[in-house]
Amino acid sequence: MSDNFKENDIKISKEQGVTYPRGFQASGVNCGIRLKRKDLALIYSEQIASAGAVYTKNLFKAAPLWVTEENLTRSGGKLQAVLVNSGIANACTGEKGLQDARETVHYVSQFLQIKPEYVAVTSTGKIGEFLPLAKIKSGVQQAVNELSISGGSEAAEAILTTDTRKKEIAVSFDLKGKEIRIGGMAKGSGMIHPNMATMLAFITTDLAIENTLLQKALSGVIGKTFNMISVDGDTSTNDMVLLLANGVAGNPKISVVDEDYDRFIYALKYVAEYLAKEIVRDGEGATKLIEVEVQHALSNSDAEKAAKAVIDSLLVKTAIFGHDPNWGRILAAVGYSGAYLEVAKVDLYLQEKIVAHGQPLPFSREIVRKYLEESEEIKIVIDLKVGPGKATAWGCDLGYGYIDINTKYS
Amino acid sequence: MSDNFKENDIKISKEQGVTYPRGFQASGVNCGIRLKRKDLALIYSEQIASAGAVYTKNLFKAAPLWVTEENLTRSGGKLQAVLVNSGIANACTGEKGLQDARETVHYVSQFLQIKPEYVAVTSTGKIGEFLPLAKIKSGVQQAVNELSISGGSEAAEAILTTDTRKKEIAVSFDLKGKEIRIGGMAKGSGMIHPNMATMLAFITTDLAIENTLLQKALSGVIGKTFNMISVDGDTSTNDMVLLLANGVAGNPKISVVDEDYDRFIYALKYVAEYLAKEIVRDGEGATKLIEVEVQHALSNSDAEKAAKAVIDSLLVKTAIFGHDPNWGRILAAVGYSGAYLEVAKVDLYLQEKIVAHGQPLPFSREIVRKYLEESEEIKIVIDLKVGPGKATAWGCDLGYGYIDINTKYS
Repeated sequence: MSDNFKENDIKISKEQGVTYPRGFQASGVNCGIRLKRKDLALIYSEQIASAGAVYTKNLFKAAPLWVTEENLTRSGGKLQAVLVNSGIANACTGEKGLQDARETVHYVSQFLQIKPEYVAVTSTGKIGEFLPLAKIKSGVQQAVNELSISGGSEAAEAILTTDTRKKEIAVSFDLKGKEIRIGGMAKGSGMIHPNMATMLAFITTDLAIENTLLQKALSGVIGKTFNMISVDGDTSTNDMVLLLANGVAGNPKISVVDEDYDRFIYALKYVAEYLAKEIVRDGEGATKLIEVEVQHALSNSDAEKAAKAVIDSLLVKTAIFGHDPNWGRILAAVGYSGAYLEVAKVDLYLQEKIVAHGQPLPFSREIVRKYLEESEEIKIVIDLKVGPGKATAWGCDLGYGYIDINTKYS
Repeated sequence: MSDNFKENDIKISKEQGVTYPRGFQASGVNCGIRLKRKDLALIYSEQIASAGAVYTKNLFKAAPLWVTEENLTRSGGKLQAVLVNSGIANACTGEKGLQDARETVHYVSQFLQIKPEYVAVTSTGKIGEFLPLAKIKSGVQQAVNELSISGGSEAAEAILTTDTRKKEIAVSFDLKGKEIRIGGMAKGSGMIHPNMATMLAFITTDLAIENTLLQKALSGVIGKTFNMISVDGDTSTNDMVLLLANGVAGNPKISVVDEDYDRFIYALKYVAEYLAKEIVRDGEGATKLIEVEVQHALSNSDAEKAAKAVIDSLLVKTAIFGHDPNWGRILAAVGYSGAYLEVAKVDLYLQEKIVAHGQPLPFSREIVRKYLEESEEIKIVIDLKVGPGKATAWGCDLGYGYIDINTKYS
């Protein structure tokens, strides 16, 4: 990574999304799966775009993810359209679910007059129910008619389930005199929901870049962003992140890992991290974003384990919801995370330095409690002092709202 | 395991505990760590007993566990007394914590006039606070004075933290004409509590058995009982299970794995499983016990992974709290558990058969909802149909009570 390229070098807009990069159009409509809210989103690239994709690791991976993977293999990693429906997940639906997903590909292919292998489809909603094909067919027709270069926001709305707000971001940066744009949208808001599912994110860019490098960029960035967040520790059957690059910016095509690639990674990570944090900030019943930074672990992988254990700990999440400076719970989570540590070296910071060398320091409970009560972002730093590894993870607190949402569904 | 030996062959008493086996005395007193409730328990074996021990795997293992391990090494696996205090965990207390734990060993050794290496000590309560040694010293004196063969129940009371009730069990069975007795007590009630910690269990028996076999028996049984429960997925710094066998029953000493050993294992497993289930039944805010049985996994270890993932899933726990027959959440947890499975083979039973070959069957939501509402024990069976592996795990539902207990502490 070039040391000269910093956050100052990218321009950020929180009012733009997937249609900010040139050559992309989008729309969001209601096709009748849900009562009134938009439930069908379409993203369209005027040019055939290179695509990277990352899917859930859940073995009950939903039908549309299988079909998308199939199409990407057939097209050699190219895409021109992405269809997303909310309300029904098309997961645990067997052979018929696969056929239905292929049928929705067919609608998009037909109305946009593009090859079916250039179409990605995905779904979020109830597990074990079948897609209403007739509704989706007329919905796709309408979505195609309404495609526009200002439609990103409508699409961002149509992919939501119990999310309380849209999650969009757009950035631009300079690459050898060309302006490169990246836009993204995502939905949360639990990893799985009351029969609803899924974390979804869609990122577009007008960068010119080779397919294999695009996939490498996406996989690398996801490991440090979307894979470092947790609302409830449950991994959905429908999780998917898609990245489309259509080359319209006209930069010399990136084909090796060089400074241009690093600049793109920097901007892409900014977009992915922003969307990932937006998802946990809007987690079910969440009142606070929690950021856990682990320093000087034996390895990055150890640091990730420790940071994720803290983020996933119910006891840490409920303590923060209750504004309780309960540092023992944080250390206990690090202790069972599987990360190597030496008790007598561990330092812990929560507003103040609270633990030094594995033992508590005198600290003002009142100051820390006030911080937990008044700050919307809680930062926890754990210094293991055993190596060069580091990682940051993001989560949210857990309180009555989560129980409300997840028990009162039926 | 002898097929002839069944639950009918063991006699069960839920009103007895660790002093049911002959040669054991116990007491429980208030020494002033807590305001009024008993906070100091002592178990005493009139004979030097063989001992097995299993400790937490949390790297922030508390001081008394280190000292107990030290003593057991020094004594060659023999014990005569166990001291337990509640209220303060003596965890994250550094070198002073170790010295304090050794000092409490000294009190027990002094007042009982036994060698210090025959003393085990353990603590449960707040992390990061030091033991009040003067109070414990006079408490040990009082506990020694009050030792009696009917004191098991007082001891079972003194080890509780936020548990709502005592957890005791006693069984007896015949071994070559000798009556063998086993007694046990435990405390929960979250794996970690509002600054409180820990799952503790103490089991006594008058069986004669060699040390190495005793440890083998304990480790094997714990893997299928205490290690298969979860309240909140957090592993405490102070977890410990101790098993003392004093040989007073006069059976021919068990020195090989034979039918006698199998009978003992059967009875010991009964005691351990009973205590383990009592702990989750009394889990923080729990209204139901959930039993998850996984059948025909590739291996036992795969079955354990799958069963534990379901038990640990926040979404499953909240669905059951809300009486919601939300089978998709159960399958999703199995899907991310890491256990090998073939989607098209998976069956799921929840009162009725709900999923066959990975796809939903039509079922009466009303009947299943009624079952979830009215039954105090919810049984979930998952049949993976890929091998001979099986496992059972126990957990509890999660609702407002858990949030109450864990946020309103301070």
